[in-house]
Amino acid sequence: MYRTHTCGELRLSDTDKNVTLAGWVQRTRKMGGMTFIDIRDRYGITQLVFNHENNPELCDQANKLGREFVIQVSGIVKERSNKNKNIPTGDIELIVSNLVILHASDVPPFTIEDDSDGGDDLRMQYRYLDLRRNCVRKNLELRHKMTFEVRRYLDQQNFLEIETPMLIKSTPEGARDFVVPSRMNPGEFYALPQSPQTFKQLLMVSGFDRYFQVVKCFRDEDLRADRQPEFTQIDCEMSFVEQEDVLNTFEGMIKHLFKEIKKIDFTEPFPRMTWADAMKYYGSDKPDLRFGMRFVELKDLTIGKDFGVFDNAEYVAGICAEGCATYTRKQLDELTEFVKRPQIGAKGLVYVRYDENGAFKSSVDKFYSTEDLLKWAERFNAKPGDLILILAGDRIKTQKALCELRLEMGNRLGLRNKDKFAPLWVIDFPLLEWDEETQRYYAMHHPFTSPKPEDIALLDTDPGKVRANAYDMVFNGVELGGGSIRIHDSELQDKMFKVLGFTEEKAQYQFGFLINAFKYGAPPHGGLAFGLDRLVSLFAGLDSIRDCIAFPKNNSGRDTMSGAPSVLDESQLEELQLKLDIHDK
Amino acid sequence: MYRTHTCGELRLSDTDKNVTLAGWVQRTRKMGGMTFIDIRDRYGITQLVFNHENNPELCDQANKLGREFVIQVSGIVKERSNKNKNIPTGDIELIVSNLVILHASDVPPFTIEDDSDGGDDLRMQYRYLDLRRNCVRKNLELRHKMTFEVRRYLDQQNFLEIETPMLIKSTPEGARDFVVPSRMNPGEFYALPQSPQTFKQLLMVSGFDRYFQVVKCFRDEDLRADRQPEFTQIDCEMSFVEQEDVLNTFEGMIKHLFKEIKKIDFTEPFPRMTWADAMKYYGSDKPDLRFGMRFVELKDLTIGKDFGVFDNAEYVAGICAEGCATYTRKQLDELTEFVKRPQIGAKGLVYVRYDENGAFKSSVDKFYSTEDLLKWAERFNAKPGDLILILAGDRIKTQKALCELRLEMGNRLGLRNKDKFAPLWVIDFPLLEWDEETQRYYAMHHPFTSPKPEDIALLDTDPGKVRANAYDMVFNGVELGGGSIRIHDSELQDKMFKVLGFTEEKAQYQFGFLINAFKYGAPPHGGLAFGLDRLVSLFAGLDSIRDCIAFPKNNSGRDTMSGAPSVLDESQLEELQLKLDIHDK
Repeated sequence: MYRTHTCGELRLSDTDKNVTLAGWVQRTRKMGGMTFIDIRDRYGITQLVFNHENNPELCDQANKLGREFVIQVSGIVKERSNKNKNIPTGDIELIVSNLVILHASDVPPFTIEDDSDGGDDLRMQYRYLDLRRNCVRKNLELRHKMTFEVRRYLDQQNFLEIETPMLIKSTPEGARDFVVPSRMNPGEFYALPQSPQTFKQLLMVSGFDRYFQVVKCFRDEDLRADRQPEFTQIDCEMSFVEQEDVLNTFEGMIKHLFKEIKKIDFTEPFPRMTWADAMKYYGSDKPDLRFGMRFVELKDLTIGKDFGVFDNAEYVAGICAEGCATYTRKQLDELTEFVKRPQIGAKGLVYVRYDENGAFKSSVDKFYSTEDLLKWAERFNAKPGDLILILAGDRIKTQKALCELRLEMGNRLGLRNKDKFAPLWVIDFPLLEWDEETQRYYAMHHPFTSPKPEDIALLDTDPGKVRANAYDMVFNGVELGGGSIRIHDSELQDKMFKVLGFTEEKAQYQFGFLINAFKYGAPPHGGLAFGLDRLVSLFAGLDSIRDCIAFPKNNSGRDTMSGAPSVLDESQLEELQLKLDIHDK
Repeated sequence: MYRTHTCGELRLSDTDKNVTLAGWVQRTRKMGGMTFIDIRDRYGITQLVFNHENNPELCDQANKLGREFVIQVSGIVKERSNKNKNIPTGDIELIVSNLVILHASDVPPFTIEDDSDGGDDLRMQYRYLDLRRNCVRKNLELRHKMTFEVRRYLDQQNFLEIETPMLIKSTPEGARDFVVPSRMNPGEFYALPQSPQTFKQLLMVSGFDRYFQVVKCFRDEDLRADRQPEFTQIDCEMSFVEQEDVLNTFEGMIKHLFKEIKKIDFTEPFPRMTWADAMKYYGSDKPDLRFGMRFVELKDLTIGKDFGVFDNAEYVAGICAEGCATYTRKQLDELTEFVKRPQIGAKGLVYVRYDENGAFKSSVDKFYSTEDLLKWAERFNAKPGDLILILAGDRIKTQKALCELRLEMGNRLGLRNKDKFAPLWVIDFPLLEWDEETQRYYAMHHPFTSPKPEDIALLDTDPGKVRANAYDMVFNGVELGGGSIRIHDSELQDKMFKVLGFTEEKAQYQFGFLINAFKYGAPPHGGLAFGLDRLVSLFAGLDSIRDCIAFPKNNSGRDTMSGAPSVLDESQLEELQLKLDIHDK
């Protein structure tokens, strides 16, 4: 037996016990003929003591141990004179009488500490060492615990976890499909699923009633900061339900997680907001509700005072930053620079300082009287001491820019605290999006999302206005998951395909097996999928989903540790009956 | 709300309640002005009653319902006069007052009954309908429950479930790797994992101590009856353990499953058998211990009596079939035909009938006296009434043939009962296998499996004799899982690579990141992996793992329901910078 206890287990009550521990050398200190070594494993750290006077040979051996050596030690547990209240084992130490080196270690390329000296790239290359760091390991422990609690909750709610295939059919529109050549069927390919959407709907047709799966999904697209080519979803579907049933069930799941994991009790129902309101008040379909600063529209109050920027703008709106009237010229210039960045794209920023003494100072004093500005302030519910920031331009673009400005102000004011959690259901998404380039509608979610019954008539007259039975769960400005009630009526489905410009053949080719399945009795059904990586990141307060993934890929889809992807042997390609045809590298 | 109760929920205590149910029409019976419809969902079946006299219109509507229509019905629960004791809802029926057709159904291509009239191919093509059958659905419910219990047990044992990547590095020897071209890195490919072996060992190096994962694995090889290109493993690894710790932990897991799922208590430790004994007594590394019939060797007793077949054979051995002395000429001929099949390959079968009256009748009476046969019988512990069956030839080939004969006799005698469970650990596997064709040793398990310490010296002198710290768990003749204690000593690992004929470059190219990781302090570790599909099949008593997989592939790796794999669009190939090069279809 390699150990009697873990390195996080011994307490004062174990005093005088003979024990054996095994783990990694975290650090060594020498002090007056004594050598102290911290030994570390996943469970904690224990202080080892080697006394040169009592056992010089053993102590010399201990002095030769380097960082990250794997050792096994036996000895007797003693109370510490100098207790460490910061760790659970801090009341005791182990007086070592036997030491075995299980495995030596080279000097690690960076320190295995929370505050490591290793840069991102180096830590990714040596990810197996990075994972030894307490702060990284904790994220994976949290991920395990959350996933387990998700399963426990859903099991209790009669959901069945059912594995759907990883090797599925590729569809001609699957531009983002990863594909897999089949050796047994030369010239043919599987695709890796972007989501198990069609399979989970088939399972509803099969009568499974309540399905879920924690499942890897794949997307072969350019990776932005927080995307991975493979990611994990909590994928769910229910039969004989309306939107309300789905929202309640999964609000319950998230509340369960907060209660079990973070000891936070959400006693109130999560707030709900229509997509239209989210865009109107926050310029985003995933507003961060940890703070206010709702958009206030001003067009009607600003018009006709010869300020061309406002007069000619489709949309004039702003936010009110509480207590920021003290902002300096420099700070205001920074904000102006911020909104003028190309990725934000505003032309400029108008500010109105409502000073503590009740006076106004604005960048548009030339055009607007104190009376005008007072009217604006009233509409913002601004108080003396507040700062009003206004953007103008095309509605959509300006809303987006104002959204970014709002988030920036939230950051500056410390209103985006990672320990605060602001849930929100965004509902009533549009069913369709118009694409200028191809001059057709696309399904905002997917072609099986149902329109709201009262909007079905609009499919013929004004499809862009049709609202869907679709919903997203948002926390702190991050979309954690989303879904919809599906169409289960064949006629409506046919109409939907027509609106999307699908010929019957195309619909049949792409979704034939699902359409056929529906002919044999489909129950009303709906569901949603959560991004597990995002959910864990929210709980752990991480800036990137990468930090809660054991072996993530970088922005080029590469695993720098193992060297994937890599070139194949000629013989492997020949067996697959494929040739490279590189024309654009 | 679509329903107040499920179709499996109502009891006598619900009498006179107004309820709403939703589900599929299972069957319709008309009887004396009444129409009875069984409505079905995942939870059960409830009898609906439509009374023509009370509500002719509704009853007419009900009479038009076809099989598999999805309906919603409301009404009042009443006690049945004619109770059905076979179903939990059999005491009541629902007197329907309202009926809504939620979805009509075409006539299904086969009956949705346990005993369906659909053939295999048809049921696979319409798998979504096949999954509606009670007997198929139950397998997936069992799979969910077993997987959940596996997770619960391992969580309690401090195991962390950690997701390892699906898009990994392909190795030149990875002839059976599925590969995935990377659009972002033209000319380069990922591989899909055959197992997370290297990653789980890295996690041990990272200090995760106890890891598991229920994970999809992939193998692009010819599919035998019971193989799938994608399959699911319960993959596990532990640090600071010896073989005994691993066996105890996972024996505990399997016992937990039997207790929770099948209410079977294995109070005794699972028997253990060395690989050498398994081959000697059963001719197989996965013997079916539901019955005896151990091999008995006879060479020494048979020699020198002028029977050339035995005299010239390397190996003469047999089994004793209890009570089979009554076997007729015809039955014995069948057995002879059986062992002479090409896939079994014996040249003939010698039998000795030990009749109830104590007389012997054998196919070799010409060569052996009654006294000789009595000596054989004694070695077999045969009693009057038994039948001895003997094969002779090369040791390995004959053992295999005798193994098949033993299983055949087990089948004929009804000794392979699916409700009986005979566990076994097979231990001390050989470390290496000699390959005649390439004239080199191959790792029987993988190159990281450790030799038994007492056999290490043999690596230099007689590698084929080295036994490994490797083990398989066997139930009823099926290998459920297996694993090993890994090498964690770099020198030993180097020696192992040498024995396997790896150059240093090749070892570095294939396993470089693991070898490098070991330089920074690897703990002693070991683990194993269970085949989830086989485990569920064992519990469900299935003949094929396909029956516990929601959407399996056929023997050509095809999903006939969705049509995967399929050809790609030219544009998809172009984007991947690949060309087909079909030369052998």
